[in-house]
Amino acid sequence: MKQDRFNMLKKHNREELEKAIKEGRADMRMKGLCTYLNSLENFFTSSSCSGRIVLLSVKSIGEKQPKAFHRKWHRKVKLKEVVDALEEKTREKELWFKLDPFIIHIGARDLENARKVLKCMRAAGIKRGGIIVAQKGKFLIELQGTHAMALPVKSHGEELIGREYVTFLVKQANKKLGENYKRLELFERVCRRELQ
Amino acid sequence: MKQDRFNMLKKHNREELEKAIKEGRADMRMKGLCTYLNSLENFFTSSSCSGRIVLLSVKSIGEKQPKAFHRKWHRKVKLKEVVDALEEKTREKELWFKLDPFIIHIGARDLENARKVLKCMRAAGIKRGGIIVAQKGKFLIELQGTHAMALPVKSHGEELIGREYVTFLVKQANKKLGENYKRLELFERVCRRELQ
Repeated sequence: MKQDRFNMLKKHNREELEKAIKEGRADMRMKGLCTYLNSLENFFTSSSCSGRIVLLSVKSIGEKQPKAFHRKWHRKVKLKEVVDALEEKTREKELWFKLDPFIIHIGARDLENARKVLKCMRAAGIKRGGIIVAQKGKFLIELQGTHAMALPVKSHGEELIGREYVTFLVKQANKKLGENYKRLELFERVCRRELQ
Repeated sequence: MKQDRFNMLKKHNREELEKAIKEGRADMRMKGLCTYLNSLENFFTSSSCSGRIVLLSVKSIGEKQPKAFHRKWHRKVKLKEVVDALEEKTREKELWFKLDPFIIHIGARDLENARKVLKCMRAAGIKRGGIIVAQKGKFLIELQGTHAMALPVKSHGEELIGREYVTFLVKQANKKLGENYKRLELFERVCRRELQ
């Protein structure tokens, strides 16, 4: 019965992944890792993101707030793309430039297998992550990278920073995103070696 | 034997906390939560931080790098403090302005008690956190806030941003730090109610 729950979850998540790959919605940088983990008996993957650069609209600061992506890139960006996006009219209270690191959700059959994922995480030098659900038949691990940037760039439609600084930011964000992707690749290599 | 390990860890960490409080090194915003959890049979706290605003020196971008605090405030900051710190000579390759959210480490006697901490975390609306060590006699939960900012402000000693933007940043960082502290207070209230 307890194993049934895990197998059911695994089946559901594997089908969701296969569907996303088929429809071209899958995050290509996560595909190798997800496909490998889902092929194993004791693991599956759930919603994951390889890392991204975003322009986030924030309607009102502080309070519980609706947020919306003004732009979202799951890759390095060109200066022109960011400048164009900044020059577009935005009416929200604030616009933030963010580099979000990868976030991965891995399901494990039991505590023993969840522990193995934590071991891989550490072997790959990933510092943030842990078991977020620990129930019989459902152990869920969340891992997150640490390459992050977050700053306000527009307020009430007005640009807060100059073009020179935007150039510097884009360069930095691309560099950090590259490091973030390298860490993710290392984690995949460790998983392929340690988890079977 | 297995319980011995937990009791030993608990004793060590409680003594460290008492020492830190006595010597005035304890983070005052963590004191209530830490003292309460350490008074319980099944929990203890380890290194924790209530959140801070920092100016971080980064020697070389990207690679494994030594980092150093140019400034570190465990409280809201005044504009003048930040401006003065920015005007000081810095020779590092980069200086970053960061708002780091709270980070809490809680030890639990067993998986059952670790689960209770995760439940409190969710009840307090904390989205990042999980069990990072899961061994007999040692279950460790790490929780982290999500109020964060991170941006480069100097490069090779040159300021990258104008005074007007620094004013905006400081206001934002103080506001977010206030929200971060409120979330921490809510977590303490939930723990006092749910954990005994």
